[in-house]
Amino acid sequence: MARWRDKIRKQLAEERPAAVELLRDWVREPSVQGAERPLQEKIARRLAAMGLKVDLWVMEGEELLHHPYFVSPRTTFADSPNVVGVWPGTGGGRSLILNGHVDVVPAGDERQWQEDPFSGSVVDGKLYGRGATDMKGGNLAALLAIQTLQALGVRLKGDVIFQSVVEEESGGAGTLAAILRGYRADAALVPEPTNMKIFPKQQGSMWFRLWIKGRSAHGGTRYEGVSAIEKSMRVLQAIRQLEEERNRRIDDPLYAKLPIPIPINVGVIEGGKWPSSVADLVKLEGRMGVAPGEEMEQAQAEMEQALQKLAEEDDWFREHPVELEWFGARWVPGAVAADHPLMLILQEACQLVLGRAPVVEAAPWGTDGGLLSKLADTPAIVFGPGVTQVAHYPNEFIELDAVFQCAEIFALTMLQWCGVAEEGAIA
Amino acid sequence: MARWRDKIRKQLAEERPAAVELLRDWVREPSVQGAERPLQEKIARRLAAMGLKVDLWVMEGEELLHHPYFVSPRTTFADSPNVVGVWPGTGGGRSLILNGHVDVVPAGDERQWQEDPFSGSVVDGKLYGRGATDMKGGNLAALLAIQTLQALGVRLKGDVIFQSVVEEESGGAGTLAAILRGYRADAALVPEPTNMKIFPKQQGSMWFRLWIKGRSAHGGTRYEGVSAIEKSMRVLQAIRQLEEERNRRIDDPLYAKLPIPIPINVGVIEGGKWPSSVADLVKLEGRMGVAPGEEMEQAQAEMEQALQKLAEEDDWFREHPVELEWFGARWVPGAVAADHPLMLILQEACQLVLGRAPVVEAAPWGTDGGLLSKLADTPAIVFGPGVTQVAHYPNEFIELDAVFQCAEIFALTMLQWCGVAEEGAIA
Repeated sequence: MARWRDKIRKQLAEERPAAVELLRDWVREPSVQGAERPLQEKIARRLAAMGLKVDLWVMEGEELLHHPYFVSPRTTFADSPNVVGVWPGTGGGRSLILNGHVDVVPAGDERQWQEDPFSGSVVDGKLYGRGATDMKGGNLAALLAIQTLQALGVRLKGDVIFQSVVEEESGGAGTLAAILRGYRADAALVPEPTNMKIFPKQQGSMWFRLWIKGRSAHGGTRYEGVSAIEKSMRVLQAIRQLEEERNRRIDDPLYAKLPIPIPINVGVIEGGKWPSSVADLVKLEGRMGVAPGEEMEQAQAEMEQALQKLAEEDDWFREHPVELEWFGARWVPGAVAADHPLMLILQEACQLVLGRAPVVEAAPWGTDGGLLSKLADTPAIVFGPGVTQVAHYPNEFIELDAVFQCAEIFALTMLQWCGVAEEGAIA
Repeated sequence: MARWRDKIRKQLAEERPAAVELLRDWVREPSVQGAERPLQEKIARRLAAMGLKVDLWVMEGEELLHHPYFVSPRTTFADSPNVVGVWPGTGGGRSLILNGHVDVVPAGDERQWQEDPFSGSVVDGKLYGRGATDMKGGNLAALLAIQTLQALGVRLKGDVIFQSVVEEESGGAGTLAAILRGYRADAALVPEPTNMKIFPKQQGSMWFRLWIKGRSAHGGTRYEGVSAIEKSMRVLQAIRQLEEERNRRIDDPLYAKLPIPIPINVGVIEGGKWPSSVADLVKLEGRMGVAPGEEMEQAQAEMEQALQKLAEEDDWFREHPVELEWFGARWVPGAVAADHPLMLILQEACQLVLGRAPVVEAAPWGTDGGLLSKLADTPAIVFGPGVTQVAHYPNEFIELDAVFQCAEIFALTMLQWCGVAEEGAIA
């Protein structure tokens, strides 16, 4: 790898001014859910100009909509096409998917932004705007890796499949549709913002809703009722206990630095209607982390058991069981072996480019990589520029240097993984 | 008293058919907040026909609206007049206020009613409809007591002041306005539904709102945030502890049968916006009971201290103090001495009519009697027909027998308290 590094770095430096303009242009497109088409068409045109075989399509159909892993608040996607561009190899090499999502979460409260949320402003080496980190910066790194190798006249043996998908923020319907359309590879890289850490394992997650019942009464004689708010405290304790039990089992060293490898977060509570009445119903909504290698159904069963245990300990819960629903978003966990060849190649490339051994950890959140591993037999590693601390927040930004370092790492990794058919100017 | 009882009972029996029709007519008027005028005008006409000096007025003015005890969600009352009718005594006797509210709470979910919520249907001796128990039945008992004594040709020495007020359900602005208009007496009876128990003491109460802060984070790394929902659990514990401390101090035997004499009820909880985010804000709303003889400000200070103590124990609360607001409804507590002459007279009347010693307890909720005691130097006893278990609920009803028993008790009490100037046909 070392012999290729300088040429790639030099080429990337030449492309940098235009590439920053390209990222700014992407960030200026507010590709929130249902409005991804303009940016996707731009990306499709660019991939075509690079000579890739481009596939832009609107996902639809029974197979998708009734798939057990289909999760989306909508069922029609007219203004949200998926885009895939294939850079065909000469044959005989390992193929690689570069998977990134183009949908961004809403800007939120615009008053908390110092500039327009879709400004793309560059200040002190940082490019600002919703989606800069999550994950247009990562997508650009992937595109630049291809473009740079092309500029140097390289031909790879294995195919490189660049995927610009929709719906990741809602649970992965875009990547699911790409899988159902037949796209798969020997491995995948997903350049979500890992701050250049390598995440071979990623947590899955799913949303749950609990209904906790009480019995109303006047607040002045509250002892005549049963407070659903007090009962919720017991349920929250049971959830905390379940979280402890589930995490005690996890001895994977990749999780050593995470205080809680697979958290259960209760994010919403709502109950009662009148200050001087005893609340007779409380709703809780939360996100349950799912361990790499764990089946979603297994995690669901553990939650059900924890609630059943409540009923065994408490007469009220026996007669008024907590109701459990699984709703909304869902991300499948994923895992790649520590000694998977792509892991070794990626680590070597990181060592070369960053000048240090990369941190290898387990991802505390899910990505579309889970679907690729689970459904497409395509082991996926999550690795990219940017830090999650700014994703989904006002004044989101990405460090441009990290984007170009990541592009360099991706180019080196592609050479090694896919195999070099023609060395061109990197020779 | 005994010598008057049979005549009064006989007279009441004669009036019963028309009186039931009258109560039905009152219940059929949906006198919810802002719509009390039609019923109040009817009542005013009736009082006038009985020869009382009638005062119907719309409350207003700076003194009322800026009074420290004024609590109402509104500031204009055009369709909600107060009505007072005075039956003047011949002089030399003790005066008595009969205070009842005409406003009723909304019918709520009509599907839970077996009949129209304002039907006034009579089935098996029970009259059904919103407000039947809370408290048109009690108001009718008070009116019937006057009417019966009049029918028997009695003249009393002291004045009897019949008050049909608005706004009790929102905190007592109607009674406050009557006090500011100058109405006061040597004592008062408030025929709220006590199930014919005598309540010489009544709990006050007031509403509070708490804001509990957290720090947001992604649910997958929830340990990077601080959950306002978990912090709320700590606040709920502190409130429970404060309730215990406050109730431990209460050794009044009138409270012996109440599990919690002055409860603190948290009736509403609401916080967090997204299942996979750590909640950064939770709102709690509740009702704090205030002991008879306790100042509202004293109870408020104890709540403030309990929250300050949280800050001493917990760094998060020190840096992010729980915010406390007092808002909405407020009822002043009240207390009449156990050996107050009206207590003795009322107990004797109960013994005669019910054939047993009445139960004397402390009220678990506030009434307008608190304002009469506190601001008008008019000791108030709460006593009336009907049970609170049906008040504010679907299919509210009142046992008609209890209404007529109460009227009998009131008539006997008035004779004794106000003094008899002319015995008429009860002689």
